[in-house]
Amino acid sequence: MDIEGNLNLIGYGLAAIGPGIGVGLIFGLGVQAIARQPEARGMLQGQMLIGFALTEVLALIGLVLAFVL
Amino acid sequence: MDIEGNLNLIGYGLAAIGPGIGVGLIFGLGVQAIARQPEARGMLQGQMLIGFALTEVLALIGLVLAFVL
Amino acid sequence: MDIEGNLNLIGYGLAAIGPGIGVGLIFGLGVQAIARQPEARGMLQGQMLIGFALTEVLALIGLVLAFVL
Amino acid sequence: MDIEGNLNLIGYGLAAIGPGIGVGLIFGLGVQAIARQPEARGMLQGQMLIGFALTEVLALIGLVLAFVL
Amino acid sequence: MDIEGNLNLIGYGLAAIGPGIGVGLIFGLGVQAIARQPEARGMLQGQMLIGFALTEVLALIGLVLAFVL
Repeated sequence: MDIEGNLNLIGYGLAAIGPGIGVGLIFGLGVQAIARQPEARGMLQGQMLIGFALTEVLALIGLVLAFVL
Repeated sequence: MDIEGNLNLIGYGLAAIGPGIGVGLIFGLGVQAIARQPEARGMLQGQMLIGFALTEVLALIGLVLAFVL
Repeated sequence: MDIEGNLNLIGYGLAAIGPGIGVGLIFGLGVQAIARQPEARGMLQGQMLIGFALTEVLALIGLVLAFVL
Repeated sequence: MDIEGNLNLIGYGLAAIGPGIGVGLIFGLGVQAIARQPEARGMLQGQMLIGFALTEVLALIGLVLAFVL
Repeated sequence: MDIEGNLNLIGYGLAAIGPGIGVGLIFGLGVQAIARQPEARGMLQGQMLIGFALTEVLALIGLVLAFVL
């Protein structure tokens, strides 16, 4: 039995699953919204970035915890 | 019992699930947006690449952590 | 207790989940985009291949790590 | 405690999740694209088969690794 | 602690997740395509069966591996 490694990285990996899918949904659907209303690009992009920040922070918390715990 | 390997690779593997689906959503939905508004291809492609970078970084953090932790 | 095997393959397997779904999304949604705009097939196919490369690389990193770690 | 088996099969099993869903997306969405443009069936089917090959290979790599690792 | 069993069955179980969802997508989306173009039923059904075979094989490989490994 020759296992090495750190369980904290498994924790970060799990924490990154959701935001990875979530940010993809925001930008994938957001690009379609911009294609439908190109003149509102600035406003739509602002909404996308707010959603991005609120989603990505979940994985970044996992990144911080991997070093703190 | 003859197990070998590295838990860190499991961590990276988990961290790659979300971005793999997310980048697929961005380009899949983005190609449909471009098909609807071909004349706005440059602008839509820019949005897709921003979303790609913000999503892919979650897996790359896992790649770095696999060597750091 | 008679378990054998390599944890690295579990890591690769996890890393292949996301790109497997992601590439499927790109080509599934991309084929629909081509059906809607058949005359733009070349340009749309280019977008699909860019997205494919950026997604598949996440699994290929896992393949490399399975031998490196 | 009487557990036996091979971790490599768990690795293959995980590697088959993504392509299983991905190939399903390609053919499910592809059949809808063909229903919308039946006259372009040959060209659309070509795109579907390219996407199928690029997705299925991720599971086949897992199959090879199950014997190599 | 009185656990018994075979890890290979877990491996097959994982290998059945993706094709289970994938075949469901093919027939679910395919039935909708047939409902939109009932006169093209034979051709669409052929596409669905090709997709079904290419997806289901991923689980059957897992079944074979459960006895081989």
